[in-house]
Amino acid sequence: MSLFLQLVSVSEAVAEICRLAVRCGDDSVPLPEAFHRVLALDVQADVDIPGFTRSVVDGFAVHASDTTGSGDTIPSILNLSGRVEMGVSLKRHIKSGDCIYVPTGGILPEGADAVVMIEHAEQIGDEVLVKKPVAHGENVLFFNEDFSAGEVVCTKGRRLTSQDIGVLAAAGCTSVPVIRTPLIGIISTGNELVSVNHKPMPGQVRDVNSYVVAAFVQEQGCKPVQYGIIRDDRDALRSAISLAAGECDAVLISGGSSKDERDMVAAIIAERGTVLVHGIAIAPGKPTIIGKYNGKPVIGLPGHPASAFIVLIAIVSHMITAMTGETASTLRTIHATLGQNIPSSKGREDYVRVAVRDGIAMPLFGKSGLLNTLVRSTGVIRVPAESEGLETGTRVEVIVW
Amino acid sequence: MSLFLQLVSVSEAVAEICRLAVRCGDDSVPLPEAFHRVLALDVQADVDIPGFTRSVVDGFAVHASDTTGSGDTIPSILNLSGRVEMGVSLKRHIKSGDCIYVPTGGILPEGADAVVMIEHAEQIGDEVLVKKPVAHGENVLFFNEDFSAGEVVCTKGRRLTSQDIGVLAAAGCTSVPVIRTPLIGIISTGNELVSVNHKPMPGQVRDVNSYVVAAFVQEQGCKPVQYGIIRDDRDALRSAISLAAGECDAVLISGGSSKDERDMVAAIIAERGTVLVHGIAIAPGKPTIIGKYNGKPVIGLPGHPASAFIVLIAIVSHMITAMTGETASTLRTIHATLGQNIPSSKGREDYVRVAVRDGIAMPLFGKSGLLNTLVRSTGVIRVPAESEGLETGTRVEVIVW
Repeated sequence: MSLFLQLVSVSEAVAEICRLAVRCGDDSVPLPEAFHRVLALDVQADVDIPGFTRSVVDGFAVHASDTTGSGDTIPSILNLSGRVEMGVSLKRHIKSGDCIYVPTGGILPEGADAVVMIEHAEQIGDEVLVKKPVAHGENVLFFNEDFSAGEVVCTKGRRLTSQDIGVLAAAGCTSVPVIRTPLIGIISTGNELVSVNHKPMPGQVRDVNSYVVAAFVQEQGCKPVQYGIIRDDRDALRSAISLAAGECDAVLISGGSSKDERDMVAAIIAERGTVLVHGIAIAPGKPTIIGKYNGKPVIGLPGHPASAFIVLIAIVSHMITAMTGETASTLRTIHATLGQNIPSSKGREDYVRVAVRDGIAMPLFGKSGLLNTLVRSTGVIRVPAESEGLETGTRVEVIVW
Repeated sequence: MSLFLQLVSVSEAVAEICRLAVRCGDDSVPLPEAFHRVLALDVQADVDIPGFTRSVVDGFAVHASDTTGSGDTIPSILNLSGRVEMGVSLKRHIKSGDCIYVPTGGILPEGADAVVMIEHAEQIGDEVLVKKPVAHGENVLFFNEDFSAGEVVCTKGRRLTSQDIGVLAAAGCTSVPVIRTPLIGIISTGNELVSVNHKPMPGQVRDVNSYVVAAFVQEQGCKPVQYGIIRDDRDALRSAISLAAGECDAVLISGGSSKDERDMVAAIIAERGTVLVHGIAIAPGKPTIIGKYNGKPVIGLPGHPASAFIVLIAIVSHMITAMTGETASTLRTIHATLGQNIPSSKGREDYVRVAVRDGIAMPLFGKSGLLNTLVRSTGVIRVPAESEGLETGTRVEVIVW
């Protein structure tokens, strides 16, 4: 009897896991800790930015119209009528024909609408020779030109970049509303597994998946919680799953590579929950289980690290996005031109590792169980289930590691 | 007199800062903490990977040649002569015409060279009908096919990804040799600056740069150390620079936006070190200072956050790479087609913000001091100094945020 009578498509599996995933609650962190967190609420500027019209260069505040036609040979000659000090507002209106020295960041005197850079001017006594015309607004940031008070500066669901942190600082957001970091429980199963500090005996392999899965979920903005290597013992596995599902927002069970082990994982989930998916039409990664245990999503990953990694990308990343409410995908992609044909079976979504160089993506064929192709590749190409392959020269999207 | 008589090119500035930067020493961290760190030494596999020839599916170990020509209608009929248990080596040689059940990850019996997936076989009593031929090596990972003992699995200078962490686990690397995290001191200067939890009065602006710079260096794998907002007071600034240069590997002085303030920063550096660069042919970002103080690199960033951010990308990122010995750039790039002409002045390297959609990069012109274009853009395009601009349709590399 075939094992995988009920293979579901990748999109069905993604839909299932997104239905299961519960969006984590809101939290708030001090601004310096907000980098790479997901914003839980829209943030508005509490003040106008900038709060005053200011110069962005060191130079002479002028009426722009006074500089029309000026050049090196025939400069405009203006009367220097004062000097702005940093942080001080000059209570004087600048009139046509006059100019006032203003430092970078200084308050533009009233009446002026542009600043001539000092590199383009020459001061001789009380006169300034302007050698290059400026347009209205040149070298000036006007009052609230960047953001108005009350304007949304960053929208919820955004994973905060370093520039976003800067904008939040300007907006006065010292305490940032973010999504609580999802806790992901990680369990490794298999009698063949030994911990990394042991040399494996024949038949044994090191527990690679715990580390790969932890680093992956960490990269995606989650906190991994390790529950160790569990032997193929139903009671021990049940205890571990129950504990992890109680303490975490989702559980990833890594390993259970053989049919018997997978069946045990599925049976334990079924005792107190539901197995929703048992096999996905994806290569590599077919023997994946998706279930609900104690109301929490539980995913049984393939035992091979290289296959598990594809399931992390194709399925688990979507679960994490659903938990954080992040609006963009957590995966990075680049475009490239396929350098070699990729054959594929219809009805199965294939993930083929490629090395991208100079915009050309070369498939790294070879066994999906090899770690070395995972490290030597730039990323993976998705060959859709309805396709029988991709031809040389096709523009492809590469999910980069 | 012109301020910037001695403008240096971006490449000269990068060369200077890389000469100044000292590679940080080696450190070692437990494997679970090694994600995103830079490897200090090549790491070799301590064992053969895999350590035994294993099946990658649940199925029947066979002589591949016994399955030639088999199909749904005319299956090959093999004699089922046993079963491999996980982690146990079957001390029996499998002979032609026989097959042995083997679970995923099980040790392949001697003599067999391939595994027929159970989906492609039917067991009837002691006989197995094989309905699809397998090739030599199919569904099998051979002894040390992935890595041989002693083979380098990850090279020094690599910033460790989640797959790398998996490979290091497989290689038995529990304590990972990494580069010590560079400490970057951050000082903000300017009488106009107020801390983020204050509402700025006219003439004042919030200290945005401390936050932007800290998040940026954090993203690049460094640890930011804040020295606060320092008023434009020579003694106070000297003390702060001296303290930061003593405690950190490099110092970024943010602000000092006006000529007077910049001159003060330069003068303090000159007291106990050297000012190597005072002005770079880059837009935005011209008023950048590079110096050496107490043997440490010190960079004076432009006061405008948006300009400072370009200098972080164009100059500071290279300093960090030099300090960590990372072999790849820390910046991420994508390729796109330019959707609009970009004019540019020869002799100056321009960084133009663009929004990329569907592979088309549209320049966001406008004032370089605006934060909103920094947040609304996808990244920047570099227009080389020797170019007078880029034409619509040009393939460009976008440094993405």
